[in-house]
Amino acid sequence: MAHIKLTNEELPGIIGLLNHRPETAKPLLDLAETLLRGTSTLTSGEREIIAASVSYWNDCHFCHTSHAAAAAAHLNLGLPLIDDIKAGLPETPISAKMRALLNIAHQVQRGGKNVSLEDVDAARNQGATDDEIHDTVLIAAAFCMYNRYVDGLGTWAPQANEDYIEMGERMAHVGYGKF
Amino acid sequence: MAHIKLTNEELPGIIGLLNHRPETAKPLLDLAETLLRGTSTLTSGEREIIAASVSYWNDCHFCHTSHAAAAAAHLNLGLPLIDDIKAGLPETPISAKMRALLNIAHQVQRGGKNVSLEDVDAARNQGATDDEIHDTVLIAAAFCMYNRYVDGLGTWAPQANEDYIEMGERMAHVGYGKF
Repeated sequence: MAHIKLTNEELPGIIGLLNHRPETAKPLLDLAETLLRGTSTLTSGEREIIAASVSYWNDCHFCHTSHAAAAAAHLNLGLPLIDDIKAGLPETPISAKMRALLNIAHQVQRGGKNVSLEDVDAARNQGATDDEIHDTVLIAAAFCMYNRYVDGLGTWAPQANEDYIEMGERMAHVGYGKF
Repeated sequence: MAHIKLTNEELPGIIGLLNHRPETAKPLLDLAETLLRGTSTLTSGEREIIAASVSYWNDCHFCHTSHAAAAAAHLNLGLPLIDDIKAGLPETPISAKMRALLNIAHQVQRGGKNVSLEDVDAARNQGATDDEIHDTVLIAAAFCMYNRYVDGLGTWAPQANEDYIEMGERMAHVGYGKF
């Protein structure tokens, strides 16, 4: 049970919180839609991998599993991607640029000041643009918010990867405009 | 100099980032306006103190000083509030409820799962409502995002408290709709 009484307690993770408080839900959903499905030279699949990785590093089961399922839906990679993200993506074919951007995301997760010029230069050397570095930092920062919102209020989450298939498909192909 | 080339490099902190990328600026500003100046039984001054405290714990000089200046503008407390926030507010008259909510905010800053039932009960015992606990968690979570965005991209910030007086007045009384 969540730390506060929610309007619809049966809704898991952030869904129950968004449903409970529409005023704050709107900018939170607009931000997710812009960051994960708006214009960017990073694909939505790549951006969902960043979101899911940061959520895993923050130990947020609901956000990690749902956004990994969304990444799998975008990239047609199937449920094994969810656990591969936990292991640092040894089995998933991602570019050297994406690995360098994931390193920046990990530094952001630890704290903003951890991002060094060397981290940024390493991404640039793999072809990352300034806009891609910007988007990576902001996605990583945003999931440090969403993760804390979900866990700070003690929401519940389905456990099994399979429970997130439909949610991931919906996040990928319908988006964050409606919840 | 920031880690990426910004359109207006002379603008400090998040202002340069918001100016550089209007697509993401809109939901980020809408969220700040809703959280800090929207409807809540916590005053805007109290909410700005939560924002400034979390920013100080995250070692984000720009966000801490600007939001502390906004809190000072709301509460007519003057610049000493900025340094008092760093010390845990020994000199500022705040309620026992606010101290309990600040404890929850500090747990959120460390990580969502750090918020315990005891932390929540302690706030409730001082009269905090579920909505106030919700807003405290979300404000604290949101500043874990803004702080990482500002520092993860290496933006510059004015150093002296005095440099933030006008900005704080504007944040308090004009708001986050325009930057």
